[in-house]
Amino acid sequence: MNVNSTPYRTVWMEDSDPVAVRIIDQVALPHRFETLRLQSVAEVCAAIRDMRVRGAGCIGATAGYGMCLAAQEASPDRFDADVARAARLLADTRPTAVNLAWAVQRQLQAMQTGATPMEKKAIARQTAQAIADEDVAFCQCIGRHGLAIIQEISARKRGNPVNILTHCNAGWLAFVDYGSATAPIYAAHDAGLPVHVWVDETRPRNQGASLTAWELARHGVPCHLIVDNAGGHLMQHGMVDLVLVGTDRTTATGDVANKIGTYLKALAAADNRVPFYVAVPSSSIDWQMTDGLAEIPIEERDPQEVLAVRGRLGDTLAEVRIAPDGVAASNYGFDVTPHRLITGLITERGVCRAEHGAILALFPEKRS
Amino acid sequence: MNVNSTPYRTVWMEDSDPVAVRIIDQVALPHRFETLRLQSVAEVCAAIRDMRVRGAGCIGATAGYGMCLAAQEASPDRFDADVARAARLLADTRPTAVNLAWAVQRQLQAMQTGATPMEKKAIARQTAQAIADEDVAFCQCIGRHGLAIIQEISARKRGNPVNILTHCNAGWLAFVDYGSATAPIYAAHDAGLPVHVWVDETRPRNQGASLTAWELARHGVPCHLIVDNAGGHLMQHGMVDLVLVGTDRTTATGDVANKIGTYLKALAAADNRVPFYVAVPSSSIDWQMTDGLAEIPIEERDPQEVLAVRGRLGDTLAEVRIAPDGVAASNYGFDVTPHRLITGLITERGVCRAEHGAILALFPEKRS
Repeated sequence: MNVNSTPYRTVWMEDSDPVAVRIIDQVALPHRFETLRLQSVAEVCAAIRDMRVRGAGCIGATAGYGMCLAAQEASPDRFDADVARAARLLADTRPTAVNLAWAVQRQLQAMQTGATPMEKKAIARQTAQAIADEDVAFCQCIGRHGLAIIQEISARKRGNPVNILTHCNAGWLAFVDYGSATAPIYAAHDAGLPVHVWVDETRPRNQGASLTAWELARHGVPCHLIVDNAGGHLMQHGMVDLVLVGTDRTTATGDVANKIGTYLKALAAADNRVPFYVAVPSSSIDWQMTDGLAEIPIEERDPQEVLAVRGRLGDTLAEVRIAPDGVAASNYGFDVTPHRLITGLITERGVCRAEHGAILALFPEKRS
Repeated sequence: MNVNSTPYRTVWMEDSDPVAVRIIDQVALPHRFETLRLQSVAEVCAAIRDMRVRGAGCIGATAGYGMCLAAQEASPDRFDADVARAARLLADTRPTAVNLAWAVQRQLQAMQTGATPMEKKAIARQTAQAIADEDVAFCQCIGRHGLAIIQEISARKRGNPVNILTHCNAGWLAFVDYGSATAPIYAAHDAGLPVHVWVDETRPRNQGASLTAWELARHGVPCHLIVDNAGGHLMQHGMVDLVLVGTDRTTATGDVANKIGTYLKALAAADNRVPFYVAVPSSSIDWQMTDGLAEIPIEERDPQEVLAVRGRLGDTLAEVRIAPDGVAASNYGFDVTPHRLITGLITERGVCRAEHGAILALFPEKRS
């Protein structure tokens, strides 16, 4: 998407020899926009580990490019062993990130089809590009399907701005481009439909305030930052036409795990008859699970994230403590929104009800 | 309540000649506990204006004591004129605070019953004490009635801790002692019933993190600070037995205006069959209003409160900006919880359903 009128992806390959990878440094956001040139597997590993790239799609694509650098660094006479070692280093940077392991494996399998180190290097380069381009294509499809929902609301509002509330960052910064929940918003904005976004700040890590607000504003989409407490009031007063969020994991029955607080917005949407949609790339569907509340494990994170807030102080970053000394905190990272509260899922293959049969109708190959 | 084992009120008169007023300096909280001695009407005005005292009951009592200082400062030969001027100064410090104007008026009327300046001074002193003591007594009554609710849950849980979620600060810091929503909690704790409180941080001004967590911890009540997003998840998993909040204004029909975000917690409570009670001193009931959503005006506050967060940085206080430059914010201060979501109102006269007839049954003198 655009950053002050220049189009960017979150990660891309530089057309240089030797090959290098360029990323947007997300640790510097939102207060500084900087890109970083990564020239070795070690530098890619550090960038993933230090969360300079984050978000499922973005991490996967970066790891794909990292394997390209691995092929470049490998010595011709022990090529496979060198690449395998690099693959392990990359996969170990964030062990729970599914897309990361998947991208590394895909590269290893693709390279096996090459006969020589030279051929394998070329395959790694093509595969890395394919992984990134597919991520973009999936988000574009979600954008196209979601756009139809926004168009319908826009027509009903006779062209008045469609007010969309979102929680956390399911934006292009978490993918390679477009994002999941933001893809329909960018598609509508780029198509000239007036949209306005209410951005939940998303405590405790403030991904809404620091990432979603940044990317929407830089692409020129009108938005207002709000506290996580505000959405119910806005919905009660007709100031939200659509809630659109992403997901970390969705069950085969349509229960949605997403950033903590999503469930509260779904309740308010249901209470005020505001449509509540979830953007779900099929890679986020857990086909084994059927009861989100009972089965999806909810991560408990460092209480320090609750006790303190990080932000800009003059020209530097600082963390201020908001709680008195001696007070404990609890920090659950996600919650589960039961499918009964969800109007629909926006997948790359189309929109469906959050219901087992409807999901399988879009993904018939998953019928057991 | 206790601060590290010493009992305090938020404001009291010092037994000195000349009389002085002592307050807990709430601007310094939660990072420093300090009291301030106020020796003149001017000092009382400054303390109210600078929010060193805040909260309806606490402001009213402080203004009552302020009128006592006004009587002390007044010259015997133009006593009434001097007192009237001081009354205007006090009333103008926070023009929208109902309890403030009420306390000042009550003092003026009481003093009219005295014949001499000496008599009037004595009346002012008695009246100030009465205003503070009545505030304490009302909160104690709410505590006693709410205690019965906690006792019932405690019995059902066979003595396991009763988990109570609260939002914002309806604590003793907002009154003279005990608080409204916190009164039943302190009553239970002091009676030896095990309770544990989930404290919503309450963005944007973080009254939960800075005031409620502080006062509960200092009195020794077990509690955990949580982000405002977390309550729904906790309720889904049976980790909340009772939600207990205060109110800024409640309609005659039981609709409750309270700090923004309260409505979201009420929705989650209803969805998970968690009892949701509101502590309502009758002074907070607006007997003219019958439709909270349509009638209660919701204040829009400075967006800066959303864009930045204040806290402790080393030994000083600092404000960090969490949003990127150029991003706008909206800041609605309150929301309205419709009476259908409320299990009951805890008033100083007892507990009733959030419903016109039930409220009037407790306050029959309000029947029109």
